[in-house]
Amino acid sequence: MNAKQSKASIRWNGKLEDGFGSLSTESGVLNDEVVTWSARTGNASGMGTNPEEMLAAAHATCFAMSLAHRLDDDGYDASDIDVTATCFLDRQQFGGIAIKRMELDVTASIAGLDEPRFQEIAEKVELHCPVTKAISGNVTVHVDAHLRKLATA
Amino acid sequence: MNAKQSKASIRWNGKLEDGFGSLSTESGVLNDEVVTWSARTGNASGMGTNPEEMLAAAHATCFAMSLAHRLDDDGYDASDIDVTATCFLDRQQFGGIAIKRMELDVTASIAGLDEPRFQEIAEKVELHCPVTKAISGNVTVHVDAHLRKLATA
Repeated sequence: MNAKQSKASIRWNGKLEDGFGSLSTESGVLNDEVVTWSARTGNASGMGTNPEEMLAAAHATCFAMSLAHRLDDDGYDASDIDVTATCFLDRQQFGGIAIKRMELDVTASIAGLDEPRFQEIAEKVELHCPVTKAISGNVTVHVDAHLRKLATA
Repeated sequence: MNAKQSKASIRWNGKLEDGFGSLSTESGVLNDEVVTWSARTGNASGMGTNPEEMLAAAHATCFAMSLAHRLDDDGYDASDIDVTATCFLDRQQFGGIAIKRMELDVTASIAGLDEPRFQEIAEKVELHCPVTKAISGNVTVHVDAHLRKLATA
């Protein structure tokens, strides 16, 4: 089996609430980025990133790639495939936290495709996207797909 | 229910193999970062990030925060908690890809804790970390935890 490995590393110092992490990835796209509990649970802007934002980045990216592949396979010429992923972190009873829901908002410009067929394709892609499969059974994924109106000549 | 939302967005253009994405997150930590198929499946350095790298970033971050919390709760004073997550993307028969394994390599400096007890704590943390729970049943998680040798006075 041919497996590609992708790596990320964090160094954490301090307690959960007032400590912070420094997060980097192998590609260098993340390079000592700040991670804090307040960025995870509050509305603190400028407080860095958090696990759910990274999971949303993983899912949006994976879905966009899967959709591009599927549309090409089906003979469609797509452009500007936009995917926004929103990851919900629930506060639970007794102080716990849990990731239970991911929403994917999908828009694209595709000639020769109607809205119902696009939604059908998006739903199929959602089932086969590797990140969806990785969180299947644990996190509910909701896909909202719409075609962008094309300018008429 | 009090749910914190975290968002990431990508715009993809072109086919899967030779197109590319531009990935951003709400916090600004990712800002129009390049995503490519070759970064996902090959050894291409400088080709940007990929979904598995983002998933590794989510898991490393979540685990480090969970471990910091647990050690503090148990009365230990930890410093330099290092977590490296490696996400494996398998090529499957018939051209499919799947995320089946994540490895977490954990090192920390903690006074008054021995190696077996640290490993026990790390294994418990692994079960309760929200990202582990999100991928539970789909992705095998392996944790390798070691104490860093402390300098003796």
